[in-house]
Amino acid sequence: MIERYTRPEMGSLFSNFTKFEKMRLVEVAVAEVQAKHKIIPRKAADDIRTKSKFQIDRILEIEQTTKHDVIAFVTNMAENVGDNGKYIHFGLTSSDVLDTALSLQLKEACDLILSGVLSFERELIKLIKTHQKTLCVGRTHGMFAEPTTFGFKLTGFLAELRRNKRRLLAAAKQIAIVKLSGAVGTYSAQSVEIEKQVGKKLDLFPETLATQVIPRDRHAEVLWVLSMLGAGLERLAIEFRHLQRSEVAEVVEGFQPGQKGSSAMPHKKNPISSENVTGLARLLRSYQQASLENIALWHERDISHSSVERVVLPDAFIVCDYALARMTEVLKGIYVNKDQMAENILRSQGQVFSSHVLLLLVEKGLDRDTAYHHVQRLSHGLKPGEQLEDKIVNDPDLKQLVNKREIQTIFSGQKHLKSIQEVIQKAISYE
Amino acid sequence: MIERYTRPEMGSLFSNFTKFEKMRLVEVAVAEVQAKHKIIPRKAADDIRTKSKFQIDRILEIEQTTKHDVIAFVTNMAENVGDNGKYIHFGLTSSDVLDTALSLQLKEACDLILSGVLSFERELIKLIKTHQKTLCVGRTHGMFAEPTTFGFKLTGFLAELRRNKRRLLAAAKQIAIVKLSGAVGTYSAQSVEIEKQVGKKLDLFPETLATQVIPRDRHAEVLWVLSMLGAGLERLAIEFRHLQRSEVAEVVEGFQPGQKGSSAMPHKKNPISSENVTGLARLLRSYQQASLENIALWHERDISHSSVERVVLPDAFIVCDYALARMTEVLKGIYVNKDQMAENILRSQGQVFSSHVLLLLVEKGLDRDTAYHHVQRLSHGLKPGEQLEDKIVNDPDLKQLVNKREIQTIFSGQKHLKSIQEVIQKAISYE
Amino acid sequence: MIERYTRPEMGSLFSNFTKFEKMRLVEVAVAEVQAKHKIIPRKAADDIRTKSKFQIDRILEIEQTTKHDVIAFVTNMAENVGDNGKYIHFGLTSSDVLDTALSLQLKEACDLILSGVLSFERELIKLIKTHQKTLCVGRTHGMFAEPTTFGFKLTGFLAELRRNKRRLLAAAKQIAIVKLSGAVGTYSAQSVEIEKQVGKKLDLFPETLATQVIPRDRHAEVLWVLSMLGAGLERLAIEFRHLQRSEVAEVVEGFQPGQKGSSAMPHKKNPISSENVTGLARLLRSYQQASLENIALWHERDISHSSVERVVLPDAFIVCDYALARMTEVLKGIYVNKDQMAENILRSQGQVFSSHVLLLLVEKGLDRDTAYHHVQRLSHGLKPGEQLEDKIVNDPDLKQLVNKREIQTIFSGQKHLKSIQEVIQKAISYE
Amino acid sequence: MIERYTRPEMGSLFSNFTKFEKMRLVEVAVAEVQAKHKIIPRKAADDIRTKSKFQIDRILEIEQTTKHDVIAFVTNMAENVGDNGKYIHFGLTSSDVLDTALSLQLKEACDLILSGVLSFERELIKLIKTHQKTLCVGRTHGMFAEPTTFGFKLTGFLAELRRNKRRLLAAAKQIAIVKLSGAVGTYSAQSVEIEKQVGKKLDLFPETLATQVIPRDRHAEVLWVLSMLGAGLERLAIEFRHLQRSEVAEVVEGFQPGQKGSSAMPHKKNPISSENVTGLARLLRSYQQASLENIALWHERDISHSSVERVVLPDAFIVCDYALARMTEVLKGIYVNKDQMAENILRSQGQVFSSHVLLLLVEKGLDRDTAYHHVQRLSHGLKPGEQLEDKIVNDPDLKQLVNKREIQTIFSGQKHLKSIQEVIQKAISYE
Repeated sequence: MIERYTRPEMGSLFSNFTKFEKMRLVEVAVAEVQAKHKIIPRKAADDIRTKSKFQIDRILEIEQTTKHDVIAFVTNMAENVGDNGKYIHFGLTSSDVLDTALSLQLKEACDLILSGVLSFERELIKLIKTHQKTLCVGRTHGMFAEPTTFGFKLTGFLAELRRNKRRLLAAAKQIAIVKLSGAVGTYSAQSVEIEKQVGKKLDLFPETLATQVIPRDRHAEVLWVLSMLGAGLERLAIEFRHLQRSEVAEVVEGFQPGQKGSSAMPHKKNPISSENVTGLARLLRSYQQASLENIALWHERDISHSSVERVVLPDAFIVCDYALARMTEVLKGIYVNKDQMAENILRSQGQVFSSHVLLLLVEKGLDRDTAYHHVQRLSHGLKPGEQLEDKIVNDPDLKQLVNKREIQTIFSGQKHLKSIQEVIQKAISYE
Repeated sequence: MIERYTRPEMGSLFSNFTKFEKMRLVEVAVAEVQAKHKIIPRKAADDIRTKSKFQIDRILEIEQTTKHDVIAFVTNMAENVGDNGKYIHFGLTSSDVLDTALSLQLKEACDLILSGVLSFERELIKLIKTHQKTLCVGRTHGMFAEPTTFGFKLTGFLAELRRNKRRLLAAAKQIAIVKLSGAVGTYSAQSVEIEKQVGKKLDLFPETLATQVIPRDRHAEVLWVLSMLGAGLERLAIEFRHLQRSEVAEVVEGFQPGQKGSSAMPHKKNPISSENVTGLARLLRSYQQASLENIALWHERDISHSSVERVVLPDAFIVCDYALARMTEVLKGIYVNKDQMAENILRSQGQVFSSHVLLLLVEKGLDRDTAYHHVQRLSHGLKPGEQLEDKIVNDPDLKQLVNKREIQTIFSGQKHLKSIQEVIQKAISYE
Repeated sequence: MIERYTRPEMGSLFSNFTKFEKMRLVEVAVAEVQAKHKIIPRKAADDIRTKSKFQIDRILEIEQTTKHDVIAFVTNMAENVGDNGKYIHFGLTSSDVLDTALSLQLKEACDLILSGVLSFERELIKLIKTHQKTLCVGRTHGMFAEPTTFGFKLTGFLAELRRNKRRLLAAAKQIAIVKLSGAVGTYSAQSVEIEKQVGKKLDLFPETLATQVIPRDRHAEVLWVLSMLGAGLERLAIEFRHLQRSEVAEVVEGFQPGQKGSSAMPHKKNPISSENVTGLARLLRSYQQASLENIALWHERDISHSSVERVVLPDAFIVCDYALARMTEVLKGIYVNKDQMAENILRSQGQVFSSHVLLLLVEKGLDRDTAYHHVQRLSHGLKPGEQLEDKIVNDPDLKQLVNKREIQTIFSGQKHLKSIQEVIQKAISYE
Repeated sequence: MIERYTRPEMGSLFSNFTKFEKMRLVEVAVAEVQAKHKIIPRKAADDIRTKSKFQIDRILEIEQTTKHDVIAFVTNMAENVGDNGKYIHFGLTSSDVLDTALSLQLKEACDLILSGVLSFERELIKLIKTHQKTLCVGRTHGMFAEPTTFGFKLTGFLAELRRNKRRLLAAAKQIAIVKLSGAVGTYSAQSVEIEKQVGKKLDLFPETLATQVIPRDRHAEVLWVLSMLGAGLERLAIEFRHLQRSEVAEVVEGFQPGQKGSSAMPHKKNPISSENVTGLARLLRSYQQASLENIALWHERDISHSSVERVVLPDAFIVCDYALARMTEVLKGIYVNKDQMAENILRSQGQVFSSHVLLLLVEKGLDRDTAYHHVQRLSHGLKPGEQLEDKIVNDPDLKQLVNKREIQTIFSGQKHLKSIQEVIQKAISYE
């Protein structure tokens, strides 16, 4: 049921056709390097390069008998190449081809994810710049804390995205690996040099030392990064869901003409994209969990990782790709209600400035505990319509300690936001 | 990439067509009960029952505009029904239909899994009966422990399967739920009675009290049971993988004429089905993990569970169904090498009987620690070709304590296996 | 660092002392039954019953040498019993004692959890009864949906708790198991009858068929149930956190005199207990994940589950016990702001009644799509201060279709809540 | 129950004392920098530096009232400092201190893990060097594949360890963060410069942009790396468990004089350390899963991550530290049975050389499929005692194609191992 989330480019990257085509590229590259080293005839390499076609139906037909997909694939290629077909796969074991081809797929998949990250990043920066001074309330524990700006909030997500981008680049490099060292990784039928040169042709690094397969900690890193990207998107999605809730009403996810929010309740506009992405993050977390169990294969490898990877590798990339694209659309279409943001700050009756009153009282000579007690007493005693500012300047215990102008300065909020633009700028320019 | 594991019946159960057909059945059942209660006209219910067709392409087309699948579905049905189409979905919210239809799907999916369990169970019992007296060595920590029989080993898997069968039946009942209580579960536009009668028509229990949706702990239970079935199959798969390994060689997974085990190494016969299932168990574990995060939806529900369930519900059922079928085939085709089993017992040089020697020495009056010391000393000192039995009867410290016949009885293994058939019979007959 | 969450009863249940004491009880029970069956001398059983003490320091000292905890324990007991000490552990393997003793611990631990569930349930029912008519808004997607009552909301958590209670009882039964079948489960040195009678003494069921250990699917079920209880508590905790947020302000978690919410901001009152429990649910999810990997032990068992269970069994019970107790305290101390609940309904400007207007328009003859369009148009066009009710009765397209009284009835909310008390009663009385 | 795995250094790093001491260091550093910037009096900073002691009992006592650990801690420090105590925590929010102190702890914890990695690496390299030429059979799917050496096998684990070491260093850098930006991360009461200078004093990098807390993706990375280290150790532990099993017998985990393997079976020597570590890897996987759910905190943070981290951060470090140390001991004590390794190669009856025969036949002009067929036919037809080498040189179809010397060269194994030392050397020297 992953179809729903499959976008064309990522989907085709994980098609049967692409898988076999990458395998073909590996076989061709090996043949060419082997010809150069006079391991197989020049003519054989030429034939393999020019005639090696494959027919998926025919491969599946052969697999019915051999129960082995790579043998079926090689047999079909050989049928097309003719006599020199016997030089295909020379000195290779299946995993040499499968894992190297998988590296090519995963490398491209990481590139697609990276382009999704960059699109998302561009929209995010745009929104940050628009709203760097858009005042709103910051909340901790879901409760009003201190003022901030909407652009500042968003910049936190940018900083996290940048960290995930670095993790993605590291993982993409970890998985760009060629491995041609044979049945148990000892290069018994191939030389280290051949692997290296094939790697150059395919733009892949040679594996330091393999078993039959490329070690699965590399794949686990990729899946972990996808789950981290998911968790970052989830954090933003949950932020938007909170900000859209009826009582908060600070943002609204794009709602198209003709769209309906509920079959029963015509009034509804729901943050369904953000909710959708929240769920997708759970999927990504699950997929990476399975990948951690794939690492400890038996001896020079068992094949238990294969049934897992057939599912989780395409599905995790597809889900992450979709989630990135969907949240990018959310960023493009989001409606930001600046008036409501201002309104919500007012609802705090000035309590969002309590921390600075505390500091002022300490500066005026009160010990911290006494100062805290006074501000807490006045805050918790506020009645509807009352303002903390008024209570302080009229409080018998406090009014002789502080002067009105100092209090006004605090409640103007200027001091709270003094560093915001500097920090945003620094964060945007810091990669 | 779940296609590889999709068997026809389970696959079609999770097709778009089946989903909409189940939704249609719910809408029809609701209309009929509402007509009986004179909430909608009799003629409307008749029209809905007889004319309510749907066209998937048309639904998807409408969804382009509404961004809401149930509204698109209801609109398409209404188009087909004509004037009385307006009575479709009367007083319902989307989740009433979606979740009740999902219950119908999951109930049938549980039935399919149950039939898979029963087939597996039949083959397992057949194999148990064939091998209840087939002697082999029991191993703990991967080391020879005491003798057992292959049938006895297998019966442990049967007992576990039976427990999982009970868990499956409990979960299937937990998920056979009708929910028509509307937008926030309060029956604001529907009566408790209507829900109950629709439940009777569809063979579903009414939800005790819902939010907008059937609570997700029910779905989590189903996914957990699938992961438990997976873990049970994994345990068996790992047993077979161990028993097939070259040095053990007690079983061989079926190998067809024409099958090839490795593209490089023609000699290979590998336990690939068991390895495959080992991986599938990891997938099932992952899916259930995601389902646990789906329980704590916000307020009367958010929709974050939906993007998860679209993937994990079909995929988990498909994977579990496939794993059951594949391991059933393994049971059918497994080759059991009784000679090798006997041979492996001999390899222990009699050490598998050490525990009974210990007991005998205690009975003869040694304290436990001294007795242990003697048996450990002789066991650890065995050279290739030597037998523990001989060492004991010739040991200066022990030979006066025990007589040869007692020792022979122990090393005959008769006492070890005295209860085996009784226990197997009890386990088979105990459901 | 689990200490923070360890309450005395549950903590002492998982102490070293209790573990050894349960092991002692198993050894004593076995000795008595063996004496009855004349397997060991009557006097030996008496000595074991009366003199079998243990000293934890001494056990640890012996374990330094033996590297085996059960042998150390048995050796220490034997030292205390004297000559007849050699009859302790007669015909047993370590796991017979360890696993049966663990069953005794887990059974009691389940009982403690059950008593926590019952306390929680009592408080929940109390709160439900107080608030069954306390009007508040129901929310889906975090957005106003339809009216409900606070008591109704809470009853959904009760229904879920009851399901989890049933799951707990099932799991507690699953784990109340005696297993004395020896090194590979074959009763080679013990009879089926002995196990059965020891089971009767200890109030445990005999295992159907074991390996060296009680199969780990049983333990996985227990840990899963704890994670389900956690997920249910999490759902309630998140509900309270939402309801307490500044803009919603419908509930406040108990706040003690002298309590401080933030070191910087004296005004803060935060839902820290609910937040704490939200996190604890994540821990419980994690623990059960590990337990699923413990099922597929090798052959007649390997011991990899042991290092996991030493941690996750006590920690999961301790965390679940604490979470239940903490949320029970939250229920006791929660402040419910009925005025704010009423106020929040008003904020919806009547939109929470839109679904019934839709139904009315359909009844009046509009097709569903047209009716939907009208109500959506008016709802989305509401300006601050306007009421949907007024817009409808004044709308040129609608006013001839409906009469004012019908509309008033809808916006009075009476129909919405007609079934609430019935459903609450049914849910409370349904176990 | 984590005590069992707590080694002194790591344990004390996560003690209450260390936590408070790190918090004290942060408060002192802040005071000093603030004095330098004339935000607080010079004398105040001096007093804070010299008199700021804390008493854990007193902190816990104050926390009874405040329900807030940082306030309790600051209050207790202030009591000890006297009048100038009010300048402690000036302009800070609790999370500034808590998270920065946590960074200090985690940084040291990563250092301890690194030293564990280095010790493990040293022992591993030692073992590799000893056994780089120790012939043994490589196995895929648990079945004999091709020859390799024990040192070569081990080098694969070294290469994985090196990758994990790089991941560890990256994570340790990611978590070495100072954060003093206040209640919602806006530096409302502190300047960017102060944070930077405190960072220099404490050797921590300033956070790019925070909420109230250091973003939790950083902590998730650390926990993921610990789980990756665990998975690598698990892979080695499973390798040793396989190699030790009775039928394979190639290695034995160190067994001390006086040690006992089983309470029932005196002959047992079990790979209990490797089994233990296998389980610990499951724990580490679980902990990191919880950490992924900690990322999406609400708004400027909720505190749900705290109850998770109190448990999983110390426990994951403690478990990983222990697992590293225990596997290092295994490496030190492991007994390698070279004779048995040689013996096991012989058991394959020459089949481990089948891949090279296939290549030779292709070179001699057979097409791949025919060549494969011949080698498979002869391999699968081997009877006990027969050698594949003999079958080939005597086969009517093959004997005219190949000459005896070519076949002898293949079955000598020289070609198989030609690259082994080069690859090992490259892997050891490659960091």
